[in-house]
Amino acid sequence: MQRPLQVIDLLKFGAARHAKQEIVTRRLEGDIHRYTYADCYRRSAQMAHALTALGISPGERVASLAWNTYRHMELYYAVSGIGAVMHTVNPRLFAEQISWIINHAESGWVFVDLSFVELLEQIAGQLPQVKGFIIMTDKAHMPSTSLPNVHCYEALIEEQPRDYDWPDIDENSAALLCYTSGTTGNPKGVIASHRAMVLHAQATISRDMLDLSTNTVLMPMVTMYHVAAWGAPYAGPISGCKLVFTGDGTSGEAMAEMIRSENVTVGLGVPTIWLTLHNYLAENGLDIPSLERVCVGGAASPLGLVKTYDQTYGVYWQPIWGMTETGPLVHSAPPQADILSRSKDEQYRIQTTAGRPVFGIDARIVDADNQPLPHDGETRGELQVRGHWIASQYFRNDDLSSFPDGWLATGDIAVIDEEGFMKVVDRKKDVIKSGGEWISSLDIENIVSQHPAVNESCVIGVKHPKWDERPLLLVVLNKGETLTKDAIKQFLDGKIARWWTPDDVVFVDELPHTGTGKLVKNELRKAYQNYLTENSTEIVK
Amino acid sequence: MQRPLQVIDLLKFGAARHAKQEIVTRRLEGDIHRYTYADCYRRSAQMAHALTALGISPGERVASLAWNTYRHMELYYAVSGIGAVMHTVNPRLFAEQISWIINHAESGWVFVDLSFVELLEQIAGQLPQVKGFIIMTDKAHMPSTSLPNVHCYEALIEEQPRDYDWPDIDENSAALLCYTSGTTGNPKGVIASHRAMVLHAQATISRDMLDLSTNTVLMPMVTMYHVAAWGAPYAGPISGCKLVFTGDGTSGEAMAEMIRSENVTVGLGVPTIWLTLHNYLAENGLDIPSLERVCVGGAASPLGLVKTYDQTYGVYWQPIWGMTETGPLVHSAPPQADILSRSKDEQYRIQTTAGRPVFGIDARIVDADNQPLPHDGETRGELQVRGHWIASQYFRNDDLSSFPDGWLATGDIAVIDEEGFMKVVDRKKDVIKSGGEWISSLDIENIVSQHPAVNESCVIGVKHPKWDERPLLLVVLNKGETLTKDAIKQFLDGKIARWWTPDDVVFVDELPHTGTGKLVKNELRKAYQNYLTENSTEIVK
Ligand SMILES: Nc1ncnc2c1ncn2[C@@H]1O[C@H](COP(=O)(O)OP(=O)(O)OP(=O)(O)O)[C@@H](O)[C@H]1O
Ligand SMILES: Nc1ncnc2c1ncn2[C@@H]1O[C@H](COP(=O)(O)OP(=O)(O)OP(=O)(O)O)[C@@H](O)[C@H]1O
Ligand SMILES: [Mg+2]
Ligand SMILES: [Mg+2]
Repeated sequence: MQRPLQVIDLLKFGAARHAKQEIVTRRLEGDIHRYTYADCYRRSAQMAHALTALGISPGERVASLAWNTYRHMELYYAVSGIGAVMHTVNPRLFAEQISWIINHAESGWVFVDLSFVELLEQIAGQLPQVKGFIIMTDKAHMPSTSLPNVHCYEALIEEQPRDYDWPDIDENSAALLCYTSGTTGNPKGVIASHRAMVLHAQATISRDMLDLSTNTVLMPMVTMYHVAAWGAPYAGPISGCKLVFTGDGTSGEAMAEMIRSENVTVGLGVPTIWLTLHNYLAENGLDIPSLERVCVGGAASPLGLVKTYDQTYGVYWQPIWGMTETGPLVHSAPPQADILSRSKDEQYRIQTTAGRPVFGIDARIVDADNQPLPHDGETRGELQVRGHWIASQYFRNDDLSSFPDGWLATGDIAVIDEEGFMKVVDRKKDVIKSGGEWISSLDIENIVSQHPAVNESCVIGVKHPKWDERPLLLVVLNKGETLTKDAIKQFLDGKIARWWTPDDVVFVDELPHTGTGKLVKNELRKAYQNYLTENSTEIVK
Repeated sequence: MQRPLQVIDLLKFGAARHAKQEIVTRRLEGDIHRYTYADCYRRSAQMAHALTALGISPGERVASLAWNTYRHMELYYAVSGIGAVMHTVNPRLFAEQISWIINHAESGWVFVDLSFVELLEQIAGQLPQVKGFIIMTDKAHMPSTSLPNVHCYEALIEEQPRDYDWPDIDENSAALLCYTSGTTGNPKGVIASHRAMVLHAQATISRDMLDLSTNTVLMPMVTMYHVAAWGAPYAGPISGCKLVFTGDGTSGEAMAEMIRSENVTVGLGVPTIWLTLHNYLAENGLDIPSLERVCVGGAASPLGLVKTYDQTYGVYWQPIWGMTETGPLVHSAPPQADILSRSKDEQYRIQTTAGRPVFGIDARIVDADNQPLPHDGETRGELQVRGHWIASQYFRNDDLSSFPDGWLATGDIAVIDEEGFMKVVDRKKDVIKSGGEWISSLDIENIVSQHPAVNESCVIGVKHPKWDERPLLLVVLNKGETLTKDAIKQFLDGKIARWWTPDDVVFVDELPHTGTGKLVKNELRKAYQNYLTENSTEIVK
């Protein structure tokens, strides 16, 4: 008999087939916790009973503000398993955004990690629909709190039966609700169905995407509170890989420790995370011999870091492209024979694209009239995707403008080459329009990132009296380094078109990032919008 | 936008992502043909135009009697791509079965390989619904034939455009129609939907099933006229593996040649095929160094052959279980670290099971009242499966007795151990009931197959005056070998329960197989039913 695609079956399979494979968590309580997929499945069943006892019913949203931990993973399966909707909330957003999101989703219960109790206490008064809070810890670690109707996670499940008669769920019903990271405006809710998450998980473990197997030790440094840690909790159990969760540890030290002690082979995360790790390793003279690959998305891959990871650590930098609306994983460029057989330069070029779409996805670029543009590696257009696990509309939002003609308009400006490699050259809202022509901020950042003294950079469009907008370059230098503006401009010389050269360079101590590790360009645009006009002596030509 | 699961997208992906990967065919015309996935996709588009020009419409069945070739693969995609149903007919069935099947399916057009034109000429008169025939060759090789309304494959497509605007197809509509091999009675039609074939293809390429990658050179020795060559034409393009088709070459020589010249790494086929190959290699003192694995299903894996492939060729014998109703692939035991780390004996034990179900499938055993039995490695029951690509009923057949409670009753008697490894101990219709107790014919065959002098064996239940049925052992010896009945019985001694010992041993020159390489036990049962009563001196005890 043909069966629906259901999220709970992912863990059920892992618990049977890879019963003894480990899930290791650096706990918020301070210690290392380890157990197996079989344990995870049993405790998810216990949590399913607990949810049912709380009166949570199919379709209801259950929110979480929590790190990557085994408990969060159990919750994912328990909530979706009973037919309710796991609503992960990004605690790194502004307090008003968080309450707006919980209210918009009408989430009835909130699961919260110790770290975010205080945050919730501040906004609890603005959450009229929330019936109660569950603190994700054991009785010994329960804090005193002003939150109303509070439960303890471990107390809730301890007496519950260890198996659950999971109901059959319509595969098109909602399993997960995530909001976009709000880089370009108010977060939008994206529903992922059971079907989408199962198809996404199968694509994720395949060789063309994350290539996970029982030999993989996977450490997702993308968070379960944002785009489900790129689906790692779903993909892990069917691949049989070992999962390593770092809890609230996002420092270079925390990562290095877990990689070295658990022999992590594959890491997932945005570029900044790997910059953080590299900085820590370099400062402390440490190595990470077990690490084979970092899979990097959420922002463009800077050539400098790609090379550093190759040359210093022997780690393959595998680009990934995706967004909340796309599962998120869609494009990648894993180290397959076809790529490894090319010249090093060509490999680096590919590693700084965003990869190719996996099976199940179509990708194209279009012009302003939604007409397809050639995949010639030169032409720029807005990236559109469609496929097996791509969202078709936003949650409780009638605006279908992002979904023209059965495609998702991504808001990314990209080129696609003859082989299908796609490269994001800008976000539609970040694009710099100079004298009617486009300048790609990402291209410039990419080159600047290769300067040995540069730690991070950011190019934004700022007001210019003659050209409307001109690029301004913000640079964070490596510790102890100094550099002149001219030295940087010289470094760019010959590598980009003359008229792309930023009009000025500003050295800053740090750049602002969103909770998901992305540059907050709209903030910078605002802060620096009058920079050129006010510092007019600096205006070039 | 979320998209339906469609068969044509498998090839479309292969043509884009693995454009230059090869499909190599040993042609019926006598030469070796090679082209790429991109070529295959283009010619499928041309065929789609040709089918449309013939007036074939969505839902209509299009039959094929054809070997594994690139043209047959093109036809698969063209037919399903326009929404019609690819109906593969097994030309190895009896002529009356073939016309019965074509009429039952109401297939309107028949595509036929040169080898089967004569066969079709004989039954053409019994096919009132067939509008015409297409001979799968070029103009130079067109035979003269009495078939009415005959077309030439290459002539049909040569003028057609090389791309096709594939329609969106309801993923639950039929893509493929196969009939069971008729081992246990009249063949039954099984519809595979687009959805089922896409999910099956994705499961097929995964590490838990065939583990296909761009490094794989896959030679399916299971035929495209039976269960779609285990889905190889669907799985190949999304894995990017090279495909090697042997056309009408099923001899040891043909296989050895293709393996050696194309560097085949993985073979698919029933046990007899690998016996044939081994016999040929042994007789000719040849090796097959490129071959890494044979994936073997359709019948139980005999320990003798498993060992021979390991010890003589260094080839891993990977068991597979499946049936027409199940896609067909469902269970397997690939050489994963967890298995390779066990003792050689334990590995062999696992290799002679039928493996474990992959993600997407549930398996269980039940008693006569449909009640689940324990998975303890001892208890025997009828195997039931359900999952993402399992049929829910037979085509044009209201009998739902094989589909109790949302499960498919497989007709196989099996044990399942604590780890999930399943072993078929008999087919329900082959089981030997001696004095009210069951004797497993497969268990005995398995042990006999390990005797160095034995080439193949078969145990059937035959009439016995006292015990109702008793086992009779038929044996084919290796060339040049001799052996006494007692020597064989002694060989069995201590390896099976005393009362399982066959009452007699018959040495035969060969055993009858179906077109799919299976022992035809019901024929043997009929032929030998009175053997013990007529040769009563031989009755033991
Ligand atoms: N490999 C990549 N190269 C360049 N940019 C990438 C890459 N992967 C992801 N991105 C960027 O991240 C975006 C998706 O991010 P996400 O869904 O987390 O939220 P967001 O788009 O930043 O937030 P919001 O939509 O609320 O503004 C993509 O649209 C793209 O701009
Ligand atoms: N690994 C295996 N071990 C033992 N038997 C197997 C294995 N794989 C497949 N089989 C046998 O093959 C059967 C499926 O074969 P198939 O679908 O080709 O047609 P059939 O069952 O032989 O024909 P019909 O149903 O018409 O009698 C299974 O039911 C099982 O009996
Ligand atoms: Mg976005
Ligand atoms: Mg059968």
